[in-house]
Amino acid sequence: MSDKKISIGMFGFGCVGQGLYDVLSQSQGLQANIEKICVKDKNKKRKIDMSYFTYDKKDVLSRNNLDVIVELIDDAAEAFKIVSEAMNNGVNVVSANKKMLAENFEALYNLQEKNNVALIYEGSAGGSIPIIRNLEEYYDNELLSSFRGILNGTCNYILTRMELENKNYDETLKDAQTNGFAESNPWLDVAGYDTLYKTILLTVHSFGLILKPDQVLNLGIQNVSFDDIVYAREKGLRIKMIGTGYKIGENGTGKFRVYSIPQFVSQKDELYNVNYEYNGVEVEGAFSCKQTFVGKGAGSHPTGSAVLSDISALTYNYKYGYKKLKKQAKAKGKLPNGEALDNDFEIKVYIRYKDKNEIKDIEITSVEEEYKSARTNYIVANVKFKSLFTLKGNKESKVFVCAV
Amino acid sequence: MSDKKISIGMFGFGCVGQGLYDVLSQSQGLQANIEKICVKDKNKKRKIDMSYFTYDKKDVLSRNNLDVIVELIDDAAEAFKIVSEAMNNGVNVVSANKKMLAENFEALYNLQEKNNVALIYEGSAGGSIPIIRNLEEYYDNELLSSFRGILNGTCNYILTRMELENKNYDETLKDAQTNGFAESNPWLDVAGYDTLYKTILLTVHSFGLILKPDQVLNLGIQNVSFDDIVYAREKGLRIKMIGTGYKIGENGTGKFRVYSIPQFVSQKDELYNVNYEYNGVEVEGAFSCKQTFVGKGAGSHPTGSAVLSDISALTYNYKYGYKKLKKQAKAKGKLPNGEALDNDFEIKVYIRYKDKNEIKDIEITSVEEEYKSARTNYIVANVKFKSLFTLKGNKESKVFVCAV
Repeated sequence: MSDKKISIGMFGFGCVGQGLYDVLSQSQGLQANIEKICVKDKNKKRKIDMSYFTYDKKDVLSRNNLDVIVELIDDAAEAFKIVSEAMNNGVNVVSANKKMLAENFEALYNLQEKNNVALIYEGSAGGSIPIIRNLEEYYDNELLSSFRGILNGTCNYILTRMELENKNYDETLKDAQTNGFAESNPWLDVAGYDTLYKTILLTVHSFGLILKPDQVLNLGIQNVSFDDIVYAREKGLRIKMIGTGYKIGENGTGKFRVYSIPQFVSQKDELYNVNYEYNGVEVEGAFSCKQTFVGKGAGSHPTGSAVLSDISALTYNYKYGYKKLKKQAKAKGKLPNGEALDNDFEIKVYIRYKDKNEIKDIEITSVEEEYKSARTNYIVANVKFKSLFTLKGNKESKVFVCAV
Repeated sequence: MSDKKISIGMFGFGCVGQGLYDVLSQSQGLQANIEKICVKDKNKKRKIDMSYFTYDKKDVLSRNNLDVIVELIDDAAEAFKIVSEAMNNGVNVVSANKKMLAENFEALYNLQEKNNVALIYEGSAGGSIPIIRNLEEYYDNELLSSFRGILNGTCNYILTRMELENKNYDETLKDAQTNGFAESNPWLDVAGYDTLYKTILLTVHSFGLILKPDQVLNLGIQNVSFDDIVYAREKGLRIKMIGTGYKIGENGTGKFRVYSIPQFVSQKDELYNVNYEYNGVEVEGAFSCKQTFVGKGAGSHPTGSAVLSDISALTYNYKYGYKKLKKQAKAKGKLPNGEALDNDFEIKVYIRYKDKNEIKDIEITSVEEEYKSARTNYIVANVKFKSLFTLKGNKESKVFVCAV
């Protein structure tokens, strides 16, 4: 099987696409041939022969000799159209588009079932870390209780340089973009959306639960300041952008809490030393206990290598079994969705703000610490988690929130 | 497929066997039934109903309704007989016996090919960490350049307690045995044999190379003293028992260095914070860069959960593809063995000794540091790696060697 030469149709030739090209060229094990690459920009100079490229998606989608379509474009809506059409044509798809996957998960799952094709996406979460396949295959019968991960290389790179090098936010964001860690739209990274999408994918493979991006809280690091870094440092803590999901209550009958927000982590935490563009995911099972996976979470070659691994898996007819999802669906008579999500609880957070009016919509139940000065103010308080949704995606807000 | 109830025949009901029983009893996903457990000791009290047990291996091996035989006994020679017979009967086998696997790897590989059965052994290396399957599946086309891992929970537990709690060697070894981290024969753990066997298994799945235990150097921590701990601590280092394998020279034409010896690691090293009974493995690929996996490396439930994961994988007809091994075998016309192993190089080591006569067989090429006192002596020197084999398995020697 592995001796077969496989034909690839590609969409997109940005950072990850070029990385995949490099990795494929040097991989000795996999015999693969890129037949055609569909790109958008006719004027952009390309590093490889122009005969590879087309600007018409039909040139790729209607080729009937393809074994796999690899989708690596930025535009999630367009990506969904491409991926759907490919699957309806009976072609297996590899994607690294977490936004597209998270926003359309149920439809994409149904397309896989209907057409009996594979859609695999290891490159969409955790960069080079094989987290999705491990959650799906290795922890398939474990009583997983939680996952928590640093899933966005850009946020972690920015936070680490602020913490360890005393650099400022804008400078490090620019560096991240130069180095190819940041997506073309930095808002999705820094406002926690990228982490949110990945968290939604890990929730599917950890617990068999399909959540929609608007159901799950994400807060970002777009308003983080040196005051916050110094506050953390004085207490021996670091600020990390973390996506998490965990079970509460009795197994099976229980609910889940899932969110993507900045959190303080102590030196004892496995994620404390996951720095710069590295990602780290900690998984906890009833019997395997805590397991941590650390690796490069962003960049051309690490993500390219994850995509390569997916292409390679297809040559062995691999597809996700979605065992947990199917089990839940069987028990409930329908695909499990937001009903099992619990957003109704209290959480202790650090909130930095300038004007009290900025945090008026946050329902504070008790204040543990309060600091006021002419320059900045903060409180450490227990708040109603649900009320933090008022800050979700709020571009005007200058408030920084971090879970304690 | 996963709905099928699978029938298990077991050998051994020690620490891991009981762990597997617990894990199986509480796993909701996998429908499995332990049909019979063959044990040695008729007088030992068992925690589960005695009707499970037999003292005659035929009672398990000749049952014809078994889907899998799980081998979890201590005796490697007996285990090899059991596993061979099961495979020759056409039954799939799960084993966690690294000694048996490492000592008989070629024969066991051939038995799998001949009988078209699966032999899988995730529980044999890295405890709960899914390292073998990841090396085999996820990094199948990556240009892996190295692995290095803390693979023995007992050594790491002893070293960590000496380092962090100033406990002495004997006391911590006893605690490790009480807590079920140490094997019944501590010599295999502390003298680096356990790490050696696991290193040999990781070498198969990383590089497609079958090595024999006597070809590969192992030195242990049986002679480690507080002087060594203090020497390391003063330099900000920790001593870790590490199994490593790496490519040298050009890809494909190159050779490999593989060994299992104590090493100093600095705070920047991913393995520095892998403490107590935890294991950690760092894998480096050309494109995925460094990846680290950390998890509990010993104990009843963590290892039991790895064995469960293997049993579960068998329900999906999983078997190792041995792609790298097959590729090497195809290129060379025979199974790749010790020929590609390089033991002919210089290595910088710290050597603590009492009497110069004890280290007379070590070929020192240059001394970097030398310390002498009435109580103890040490040197830091470049030595011929091959000459360190004179210390391998030497129960009389009181010398402690640690790679710098």
